[in-house]
Amino acid sequence: MKILCIGDIVGRPGRRAVRELLPKIKEKHKIDLVLANGENAAGGVGLTRKVTEELLSYGIEIITLGNHTWDNREIFKFIDDDQLPLVRPANYPPKTPGKGYRIFEYEEARIGIINMLGRVFLGDFDCPFRTFDQIYEKIKDETDFILVDFHAEATAEKMAFGWYLDGRATAVFGTHTHIQTADERILPGGTGYITDLGMTGPIDSVIGVKKDVVIEKFLTQLPKQFEVAKGDVQLCGIILDITEVSGKVRDIQRIQENSYND
Amino acid sequence: MKILCIGDIVGRPGRRAVRELLPKIKEKHKIDLVLANGENAAGGVGLTRKVTEELLSYGIEIITLGNHTWDNREIFKFIDDDQLPLVRPANYPPKTPGKGYRIFEYEEARIGIINMLGRVFLGDFDCPFRTFDQIYEKIKDETDFILVDFHAEATAEKMAFGWYLDGRATAVFGTHTHIQTADERILPGGTGYITDLGMTGPIDSVIGVKKDVVIEKFLTQLPKQFEVAKGDVQLCGIILDITEVSGKVRDIQRIQENSYND
Amino acid sequence: MKILCIGDIVGRPGRRAVRELLPKIKEKHKIDLVLANGENAAGGVGLTRKVTEELLSYGIEIITLGNHTWDNREIFKFIDDDQLPLVRPANYPPKTPGKGYRIFEYEEARIGIINMLGRVFLGDFDCPFRTFDQIYEKIKDETDFILVDFHAEATAEKMAFGWYLDGRATAVFGTHTHIQTADERILPGGTGYITDLGMTGPIDSVIGVKKDVVIEKFLTQLPKQFEVAKGDVQLCGIILDITEVSGKVRDIQRIQENSYND
Amino acid sequence: MKILCIGDIVGRPGRRAVRELLPKIKEKHKIDLVLANGENAAGGVGLTRKVTEELLSYGIEIITLGNHTWDNREIFKFIDDDQLPLVRPANYPPKTPGKGYRIFEYEEARIGIINMLGRVFLGDFDCPFRTFDQIYEKIKDETDFILVDFHAEATAEKMAFGWYLDGRATAVFGTHTHIQTADERILPGGTGYITDLGMTGPIDSVIGVKKDVVIEKFLTQLPKQFEVAKGDVQLCGIILDITEVSGKVRDIQRIQENSYND
Ligand SMILES: [Fe+2]
Ligand SMILES: [Fe+2]
Ligand SMILES: [Fe+2]
Ligand SMILES: [Fe+2]
Ligand SMILES: [Fe+2]
Ligand SMILES: [Fe+2]
Ligand SMILES: [Fe+2]
Ligand SMILES: [Fe+2]
Repeated sequence: MKILCIGDIVGRPGRRAVRELLPKIKEKHKIDLVLANGENAAGGVGLTRKVTEELLSYGIEIITLGNHTWDNREIFKFIDDDQLPLVRPANYPPKTPGKGYRIFEYEEARIGIINMLGRVFLGDFDCPFRTFDQIYEKIKDETDFILVDFHAEATAEKMAFGWYLDGRATAVFGTHTHIQTADERILPGGTGYITDLGMTGPIDSVIGVKKDVVIEKFLTQLPKQFEVAKGDVQLCGIILDITEVSGKVRDIQRIQENSYND
Repeated sequence: MKILCIGDIVGRPGRRAVRELLPKIKEKHKIDLVLANGENAAGGVGLTRKVTEELLSYGIEIITLGNHTWDNREIFKFIDDDQLPLVRPANYPPKTPGKGYRIFEYEEARIGIINMLGRVFLGDFDCPFRTFDQIYEKIKDETDFILVDFHAEATAEKMAFGWYLDGRATAVFGTHTHIQTADERILPGGTGYITDLGMTGPIDSVIGVKKDVVIEKFLTQLPKQFEVAKGDVQLCGIILDITEVSGKVRDIQRIQENSYND
Repeated sequence: MKILCIGDIVGRPGRRAVRELLPKIKEKHKIDLVLANGENAAGGVGLTRKVTEELLSYGIEIITLGNHTWDNREIFKFIDDDQLPLVRPANYPPKTPGKGYRIFEYEEARIGIINMLGRVFLGDFDCPFRTFDQIYEKIKDETDFILVDFHAEATAEKMAFGWYLDGRATAVFGTHTHIQTADERILPGGTGYITDLGMTGPIDSVIGVKKDVVIEKFLTQLPKQFEVAKGDVQLCGIILDITEVSGKVRDIQRIQENSYND
Repeated sequence: MKILCIGDIVGRPGRRAVRELLPKIKEKHKIDLVLANGENAAGGVGLTRKVTEELLSYGIEIITLGNHTWDNREIFKFIDDDQLPLVRPANYPPKTPGKGYRIFEYEEARIGIINMLGRVFLGDFDCPFRTFDQIYEKIKDETDFILVDFHAEATAEKMAFGWYLDGRATAVFGTHTHIQTADERILPGGTGYITDLGMTGPIDSVIGVKKDVVIEKFLTQLPKQFEVAKGDVQLCGIILDITEVSGKVRDIQRIQENSYND
């Protein structure tokens, strides 16, 4: 079974990348299932119902989130709609709207999807390591395999989390930094790992944002209104090839596909 | 002219990686000059004179540093020895020992090397953007090309810095996160760029450190003595192919080479 | 000469505190000059021209600012109007609008006012220690005494800054934490010092903000729209008694005055 | 019943302050019980058995801790010795050595003592708000009153925590910043509150540390070995006057007592 995991989709250009590139990628790589991080999909921060439906219409089947989950307040209206395949970080406090993990069925397979936030440089959430342990105990017998989107900043926390899950999760992929890392591998216990999937959005940008505005902010230290950049776009992610019997990763492959303006 | 830039060398395993892999890489790629980040070369943090000389004996010709520059206090004894090709971050306060940029000569070429620290999540240094401007004005007429090691954490700061230098520096490569990124490219103004070179050190580790200790630290939040990991090693970096006439990058290529234990 | 220095004025309740309490305080303590931190005066963050004029109409004569200086974008329109006695943090980059220090004249005395931001936990500004040195060299001969509003978070940075200025500044008072400290003293070199003036605004609040919203934010880690609290108000600050001849502080006295609703 | 709560005791000078000042304070104010924060008592960071016993011999009866709890590794040997009246922060992960809350008996009264760490700017601990709720449910029926040492940095987190506990805890006092705040009060629900008790240690210092070294660190950004300062000392804290019947605070009073060298 081949699963495509797409890194943070940033605004309209990110959605355009999905629309233009996903069909070709699915066909070329014979993708069975498509997951994407959608925390920046609506205007650069957060998600709306309309944007969610747009992403689903392009072929994305599962959407994970991150620290920007709540930045468009519309999400409080639809995050509990179980018809939408949304998974928000699991280590928010109890009673947080939405679900931190879900089990999706694809043909015969029961696929556990967990979204988790790192804490280093990011915020005050429950311990991601212990939260994973708790969820794992609940779902390990009800799932054929488990994928984890670890939305985190610091490379040390991400690598440590990968090692901690090695042999339990089928794959752990990082998101949030918007820059793809070149360290995809299968850990000794069989877990597929990459520190960051990278971003899906405008190429000539600072992690999706208009570069002049970000440079100006660093130079002046004044507040600046960020704006999603324009121009050519890129889709970044990984393709996991999973042995359905064992739930182990046979192969993990990075992809970066570009779509150019006319 | 081909320049190999090697990411943070971590302790004894990192030095072993250099010793075992550098000769082959130099020969295979016809490397003219070798630069490396040495901030973790002695026992995981900092640098000693002995380790510096060891690295030079393996063929490294220029050593840049980072936030761990001063962690082995022996460095205060030799950082001002101009015989040693050391460059420490330029945006420390005036009067800081050592030099933040230097001009090296290689055959006909005068090569400006700048080391710089990011500030986001890292510390209170002078503005790297303005510090670059000042150094650039001083050395642009005395150099044929300029390479910048931007030792920083946040991807946004690194990308913004790359764009800010585009057309002025020959190349900007990030260090510090110890995970290689897959975003090497030549920016529109001609500057070679990558967000992080990655680490040179033990493969089965958390950014060079024994993984069990780091996991334990995340689980317990208690202080832990970090220790450099053991086992197979990797050398990470980039090869820049520079047109000597224009000082522009013709090509930027990532490398990851492994050396396995017997 | 007696100078009243008022801590961060928060929104409408803070302005009401000034309106209702300042006349009595001025009379009771025979205040000659009134300075206040205004970074939160307009709606809790930032400053408008109207609010500035309102504060001046109540008897405030000098307004310093802080990390919220730019949060109401209207300030870019009037911060360079020299008719308004505004002083913004001095350690923003060169070319920042406004002035980081100014010399005001009161009767015979030339009073240097410096506003400065700390960096620890606050942001990436120029070094406040070196920035003070530079300003001090410029103005020491043109002023009879110098007052410094050090807008900073960490107690260690604030105390260190106080000691660093001891004997050069007439007084250094901290702002920003919105909680008055009980450590007012005259340092051995003669400089008056307090770590924080405290806040001028609603008493039953979390540093000026409605307490239920802040508690909710800590409990849920979800984004919350902060709102200035209501109810009884307090004015916090210090009274400096300065010997005009020497420019030294004779006395530093904390004040906290309340105004209750009917 | 009168309880004296002493702020962070820093090293030998802090212990000297206790030895010289505590007997007089106890007598003058007719103190029934003495609690102190001991996280800096041994050499400036952490605690040893010998220092613990020294503090007990001076009349301290309960010792709370903070983020420096584990900095002297000797503590792992004695923190589980229930003969010693130690309470470490409660929001470390389960299985952490020591106890996060304890019930002490004094004459007829059962006194719950809770130590808690803030998270803002401090570290990745369990939510202090929810951790308090859990402990409170366990001990509210077994205690006559509850005192909470909230060891935290940010004033907003401390105030919010105070309000959250108002009506449940008898008193909440902050520690960690080493600067006493002037905001002691009884909240509307009856809980005594102060943002920080202040430090017990050398007066002419930066929060207990030799001031020249701290200034040097801010100026150079180089690593510096901190050293506890010398000279005259101060004991800072509060005296809580508690009505034994209701467990409510009748009065909260700040104290700062100095002891001068010969
Ligand atoms: Fe993102
Ligand atoms: Fe994110
Ligand atoms: Fe490093
Ligand atoms: Fe580093
Ligand atoms: Fe403020
Ligand atoms: Fe502020
Ligand atoms: Fe402390
Ligand atoms: Fe502390």
